[in-house]
Amino acid sequence: MKTFGNVVNVFRVLVKGHLSSGMTVLDATSGNGHDTLFLLDLVGENGFVYAFDYQSTAIEATATRCMHNGVLPTNLKLICDSHANLDQYIESETLDAAVFNLGYLPGGDKAITTKVESTAAAIEKALMALKSGGLLYILCYAGHPSGVEEYRYLQLKLSALPQRTFDVMTVDFINQAGKPPVMWVIEKK
Amino acid sequence: MKTFGNVVNVFRVLVKGHLSSGMTVLDATSGNGHDTLFLLDLVGENGFVYAFDYQSTAIEATATRCMHNGVLPTNLKLICDSHANLDQYIESETLDAAVFNLGYLPGGDKAITTKVESTAAAIEKALMALKSGGLLYILCYAGHPSGVEEYRYLQLKLSALPQRTFDVMTVDFINQAGKPPVMWVIEKK
Repeated sequence: MKTFGNVVNVFRVLVKGHLSSGMTVLDATSGNGHDTLFLLDLVGENGFVYAFDYQSTAIEATATRCMHNGVLPTNLKLICDSHANLDQYIESETLDAAVFNLGYLPGGDKAITTKVESTAAAIEKALMALKSGGLLYILCYAGHPSGVEEYRYLQLKLSALPQRTFDVMTVDFINQAGKPPVMWVIEKK
Repeated sequence: MKTFGNVVNVFRVLVKGHLSSGMTVLDATSGNGHDTLFLLDLVGENGFVYAFDYQSTAIEATATRCMHNGVLPTNLKLICDSHANLDQYIESETLDAAVFNLGYLPGGDKAITTKVESTAAAIEKALMALKSGGLLYILCYAGHPSGVEEYRYLQLKLSALPQRTFDVMTVDFINQAGKPPVMWVIEKK
């Protein structure tokens, strides 16, 4: 059992060190709902989770995973829409954390992936939606063509965020073959 | 109060997510003893901490910081020697974690810094001293000349570690002016 080994494990350790009961968070890419459930557990009954996916199969899978005795928790809002519209659902400066796990739905149609245009718009809006002290986590898979585009765009965009307003860090695995996923973590000051 | 913001904070969150009571760890650069005390608290009474520094003032500062009612804990071994000699004190495959916080002693003589030759030898030996599943954390300050040398050497060396034996990750702050410190985390398989 590895402690780290990939950015998903590092993400989980960092988020556990940061989130606590009562916080409000966004899962911008709910997929099969693994992260959504993980976030729900961390923020507890007094917290709140928004979960977006534009594929209804993903929203259904997330609902199934997060149900408890057949009932969806009242502190989870599932939204079947593009995360590029998140400002229609979430007010500015209200989130303690936001998570983007980019790419395609595991087990789904690999031709349907997040795209750089909507990812860019959604991340811009997620930064607005963060409170001061809030954190944005972005996991990016540069092993497929639209992932490469997202990686290039985000590396350029995020490294240019003003230091007076944000701290931007990257987590990279540097001795692995192929193109292992990378993570950015952006903290709003 | 920042959650991350620099690699020292990230180091602390990652280490807390990994270390537990009863573990054996090495602080290869005890300095003023802050990390030594942090590690002692995490591994508890049933754990063990080796702390190296080749400056006696650092060892004294560490002793003072770690004393409890004027007595040094019996599960702390302070060693005033170069960490390049760590194999004389620590057996192979016995450590759950090792920490190198490179550079000069805060508040001390800035001309006295860790040097690439001894750092290289010590890190080679620390990798041997890790158990399977053990983690090596290296914090490097590339803002001073010998730090630049260490950074270049380590980035090359660590990215070439075989993937079958180690996972190597970096944590970098990418939107900060100057040369913010970087961290590598190496997990032994």
